[in-house]
Amino acid sequence: MSEDIPKTQKAVVYASDAGKIEYKEIPVPTPGPNELLIHVKYTGVCHTDIDAWRGDWPLPTEKPLVGGHEGAGVVVGMGRDVQYWNIGDYAGIKWLYSCCMQCEFCEEMAEPNCPHAVLSGYTHNGSFQQYAVADATQAARIPKGVDLAEAAPILCAGVTAYTALKTTGVIAGQWVGISGAGGGLGSVAVQYAKAMGFRVLGIDSGEKKDYVTNDLGVDAFIDFTTEKDVVAAVKNATDGGPHGVINVSTSNTAINQSTEYVRTLGVVVLVGLPAGSKVVASVFDSVVRSIQIRGSYVGNRRDTAEALDFFARGLVKCPIKIGKLRDVEEVFKLMEAGKINGRYVLDTSK
Amino acid sequence: MSEDIPKTQKAVVYASDAGKIEYKEIPVPTPGPNELLIHVKYTGVCHTDIDAWRGDWPLPTEKPLVGGHEGAGVVVGMGRDVQYWNIGDYAGIKWLYSCCMQCEFCEEMAEPNCPHAVLSGYTHNGSFQQYAVADATQAARIPKGVDLAEAAPILCAGVTAYTALKTTGVIAGQWVGISGAGGGLGSVAVQYAKAMGFRVLGIDSGEKKDYVTNDLGVDAFIDFTTEKDVVAAVKNATDGGPHGVINVSTSNTAINQSTEYVRTLGVVVLVGLPAGSKVVASVFDSVVRSIQIRGSYVGNRRDTAEALDFFARGLVKCPIKIGKLRDVEEVFKLMEAGKINGRYVLDTSK
Amino acid sequence: MSEDIPKTQKAVVYASDAGKIEYKEIPVPTPGPNELLIHVKYTGVCHTDIDAWRGDWPLPTEKPLVGGHEGAGVVVGMGRDVQYWNIGDYAGIKWLYSCCMQCEFCEEMAEPNCPHAVLSGYTHNGSFQQYAVADATQAARIPKGVDLAEAAPILCAGVTAYTALKTTGVIAGQWVGISGAGGGLGSVAVQYAKAMGFRVLGIDSGEKKDYVTNDLGVDAFIDFTTEKDVVAAVKNATDGGPHGVINVSTSNTAINQSTEYVRTLGVVVLVGLPAGSKVVASVFDSVVRSIQIRGSYVGNRRDTAEALDFFARGLVKCPIKIGKLRDVEEVFKLMEAGKINGRYVLDTSK
Amino acid sequence: MSEDIPKTQKAVVYASDAGKIEYKEIPVPTPGPNELLIHVKYTGVCHTDIDAWRGDWPLPTEKPLVGGHEGAGVVVGMGRDVQYWNIGDYAGIKWLYSCCMQCEFCEEMAEPNCPHAVLSGYTHNGSFQQYAVADATQAARIPKGVDLAEAAPILCAGVTAYTALKTTGVIAGQWVGISGAGGGLGSVAVQYAKAMGFRVLGIDSGEKKDYVTNDLGVDAFIDFTTEKDVVAAVKNATDGGPHGVINVSTSNTAINQSTEYVRTLGVVVLVGLPAGSKVVASVFDSVVRSIQIRGSYVGNRRDTAEALDFFARGLVKCPIKIGKLRDVEEVFKLMEAGKINGRYVLDTSK
Repeated sequence: MSEDIPKTQKAVVYASDAGKIEYKEIPVPTPGPNELLIHVKYTGVCHTDIDAWRGDWPLPTEKPLVGGHEGAGVVVGMGRDVQYWNIGDYAGIKWLYSCCMQCEFCEEMAEPNCPHAVLSGYTHNGSFQQYAVADATQAARIPKGVDLAEAAPILCAGVTAYTALKTTGVIAGQWVGISGAGGGLGSVAVQYAKAMGFRVLGIDSGEKKDYVTNDLGVDAFIDFTTEKDVVAAVKNATDGGPHGVINVSTSNTAINQSTEYVRTLGVVVLVGLPAGSKVVASVFDSVVRSIQIRGSYVGNRRDTAEALDFFARGLVKCPIKIGKLRDVEEVFKLMEAGKINGRYVLDTSK
Repeated sequence: MSEDIPKTQKAVVYASDAGKIEYKEIPVPTPGPNELLIHVKYTGVCHTDIDAWRGDWPLPTEKPLVGGHEGAGVVVGMGRDVQYWNIGDYAGIKWLYSCCMQCEFCEEMAEPNCPHAVLSGYTHNGSFQQYAVADATQAARIPKGVDLAEAAPILCAGVTAYTALKTTGVIAGQWVGISGAGGGLGSVAVQYAKAMGFRVLGIDSGEKKDYVTNDLGVDAFIDFTTEKDVVAAVKNATDGGPHGVINVSTSNTAINQSTEYVRTLGVVVLVGLPAGSKVVASVFDSVVRSIQIRGSYVGNRRDTAEALDFFARGLVKCPIKIGKLRDVEEVFKLMEAGKINGRYVLDTSK
Repeated sequence: MSEDIPKTQKAVVYASDAGKIEYKEIPVPTPGPNELLIHVKYTGVCHTDIDAWRGDWPLPTEKPLVGGHEGAGVVVGMGRDVQYWNIGDYAGIKWLYSCCMQCEFCEEMAEPNCPHAVLSGYTHNGSFQQYAVADATQAARIPKGVDLAEAAPILCAGVTAYTALKTTGVIAGQWVGISGAGGGLGSVAVQYAKAMGFRVLGIDSGEKKDYVTNDLGVDAFIDFTTEKDVVAAVKNATDGGPHGVINVSTSNTAINQSTEYVRTLGVVVLVGLPAGSKVVASVFDSVVRSIQIRGSYVGNRRDTAEALDFFARGLVKCPIKIGKLRDVEEVFKLMEAGKINGRYVLDTSK
Repeated sequence: MSEDIPKTQKAVVYASDAGKIEYKEIPVPTPGPNELLIHVKYTGVCHTDIDAWRGDWPLPTEKPLVGGHEGAGVVVGMGRDVQYWNIGDYAGIKWLYSCCMQCEFCEEMAEPNCPHAVLSGYTHNGSFQQYAVADATQAARIPKGVDLAEAAPILCAGVTAYTALKTTGVIAGQWVGISGAGGGLGSVAVQYAKAMGFRVLGIDSGEKKDYVTNDLGVDAFIDFTTEKDVVAAVKNATDGGPHGVINVSTSNTAINQSTEYVRTLGVVVLVGLPAGSKVVASVFDSVVRSIQIRGSYVGNRRDTAEALDFFARGLVKCPIKIGKLRDVEEVFKLMEAGKINGRYVLDTSK
């Protein structure tokens, strides 16, 4: 092995649903036959981590639990059956820890939809620790030479945004609307959309206008807080409505409006995971305008590799703030207060 | 011209929205430069004809109006610019009378979605008359030798069912669920589905079970009136849920259930046009199971030709009752009372 | 384990390229961590087995070698990491023994195209033995209750024909041409094509006409040995050419003709593997008619499951003759002499 | 009408196959019922114009003939049935003058493949004149405000390159190889490919390297004249071969090599129209690597609108030299001598 692996390490552990969040010493795990041991250098913090801690989704978690599912690090060990990985490779821990690889969904590359899916930081210890195991088949291959802190949020936010954009079916030159363009996920989505040759309409509140328009460079911007008729404004700005929309915002009003302003024949993508929320659309209008509503979950391994490739080529950069692993609870509070622009990435050594 | 064309003819005319329905003598129309004059032999009656008469859709009609949009007949005249048609050809009048052929939707073959669409029996005089004009580009080419009475309902019910099935994206060997399988549209949909190699689950009330199971030959049947848990029953009957569902039934409950029982990765198709109705689906579930909801309107010219081809090859047969053109109003009443099995087709000579 | 597993067994072993073919006693293999031990009951014999024995392909084999890649049997043992399999399950050995599951091709479900592919009866001991190991991820899941002798050839001939048909992109109601329709692979292809709702044109020599037309039930037949202008005859029989063609025949003339008679916009599929052969097509004609030529290798795991499902539902039946495992060499001779109709399946107990 | 239309005009007329090319006075044509009269301001000159003049393709021309199929101008008149056009609109004359709009290919948007296709400057008088008629359905809608001289070559070179790129099926982030990247069509293709988010490998002779690499900005360049093993070099430069290739070069060697260096699962697009040339590929290799070869003709109306939109947004700029209409013959000679970089565009007033 390339480095001395300690017996114990620091980790952030959720004791129970919405219970205590502890920064404490735990054993370094031992990789199983087809597992890697990854020295996690940085881990992103995603809004889903709060749902995992709270246990408020209709999908049970396993507690106590080490949270986190955006871990970027270095392979320092591996089980006896692992192939095609080397000590020293950059590797990532992502939402899908492992799946059965044998069901119809795995066979169709829809691995995240596997009924046997095991989820990092949700039903399996995740990236809020210094040393984590990862399934060798599912672990992300991070290209050499990239900044691991910046790579971390690509593993969930990046892949999710990129996959949602693919799910729209939009082709280069067409319009995509991004509802919530100024947020953490939205800002990444705008960059992927531009790298894919799309024309981008950003929708957000007015205070994000400068950032979304000037820094991210969207082709058009709608301030949903001041527009009297958002549907009309969006259609007007895009010469008939965007060909695809991704709903990064989880507002019900925003989601339902998107089924109205999307272009005839267009595709509305649902990507956020607000517990209990419903999408409501007119049947008559959906039929006569032949629109589609598609759910897009996290990407599969191919999507992950592609999303990382855009990042490694410098086309996408997630705006990050670097914090300390011990401060997970505090970051959760800032996120819940809506006080974060961009994404927190935590240094696991601190 | 192949026959003597009279100056006047019998027609069924709606005086105003939900107003008088008159069977009366009107002039035979003269075809424009790119129009055919069709001697309509038979016309189907569709539930949409009632909506057109009432004017209850969020799409204005033009009254007074000759209703009907499932007319099968023979070309007896044509305008000076018509090409590729011959006197004596079998031709059909369908929902889409004409469209601009120049907008982005027409360019993409989505002609029914054209903003300049003119609709037979809705915004243009339709098939409830003995002689009707039809746009030469949009008129359906009915294969020689078929029974025109049986061909009539293929022009709307058949094409709509067939297009909805294509919209599911289901491939041969996979399951398609047809909600409302025992109705007029549903029974045609079952036959197309089987001709396309799909495994078919019929959903309807128990009184339709024999017909749907034995006469139409579905692979499985669910009686939604007696099943306590329709979602579970459908999933069970199809080993995890149908890969696609078409909602021929316009029941809101049925539509919303279909978003729950459709297989993970599956596609729910909306095809009926209930005014004011909404589809409601869980965002969380739609994302995690990556399902799709797609509106499917009437088919385009290619869909129409394909649907007619299945019919001409004897693979699909719409169960019809033949009535008289003068009895349109009475047929409407029977339809509203839900007293019709199959489709009424009217002989325009009576 | 469900039965006593002997230490040794009978197998057919190729000593070297085109060398001795021995029926002899060898040890029963021990499954690795993610491997099944399958009691092979029946094994098909494929023309590719002759190429494997001869070593005449531009892809090196590993000798000595137990041949065969169409093995149908029962799981009698498994390695310590195997999941989702049970002793007693029906399982199949197919061409793709294993692949890396980590490269871009595996990630895209194109497992047979994996650069690390290991091939049964080619670079790994195959199904010409009584007990064979199989990778648990790649082993085919054969539905309970089917006849294992009949299932055997589905594992290669069936999957290959089915996948080639999917590769054509033909939809139900359209024409597919099958060049070599009366042969082993062709006759299976015709049945799949019909189950998929295609209209089928069979092309073969006149002596096969009765079988292909009456027993298999194609919609049209062309005798390439007596037609003066095969291209014109095919176009005529299919109203402009088939929308897709699969070249089961490996004749160069037949393949090149298929690029001429395929319908404008149509797809020619190459599926046979004649060493050294070339497809030659006119660039001008390919462009102006916008045709496609596509190579189709064996199917992936999803294709295999689907192909087996058609078989289990009774829609496809490979015409087989049952022989003895010890007679592999003799069967090779019959195959080379072109004296076999249908497929030889060998009983491994004899 | 917006301007005085003269009775006669200047035009370039081919007297017969490979016969006299005359710059002379001819009558201004009168538009038919569904035709526009376009005042052609500029016309591009395409290599196909030479084939049309010579009559060397297996598709007969009609002589005497006004050549040209890349005309950009202004609508100055229209027939009585024309809709959705206004006097003063910018309009373009493209290769497809008109088609039947009623056959299966037109119904599928494959208008250029229509058996009734009429071709500008080939079977119908084209853009080598000051006033030309154009079918109102097929005439290109050129966005207001663009430079008409620069727009002209987009109507054929631009659309053809763009459509070929779509035909590759390559997605943003993947590699496309452009064989002949430094030529007129190739340089436009590189720009479209970059605007679509592709990674671009240019292949051409070394003298084009600076231009292709620095001016056009490809990601990698291969000099086919000096590389000993072009196939290996291309694979190496693209980490396994480009996912798609468009053969702008009409060299047989180049086309056949592209079937070898294209990535496994990749798509080779044929787009040039060299009379008599053949594509030759190994059947074994095509199957085992599952590659595709696709012919791509000129684009349809949607492709044309999209290609013009990229141009109007400033993302694509065809390098042009402006000449005089009277100099067509001289330009032909320069083209045949291979002495032109970029595209000649002729001012029809000179």
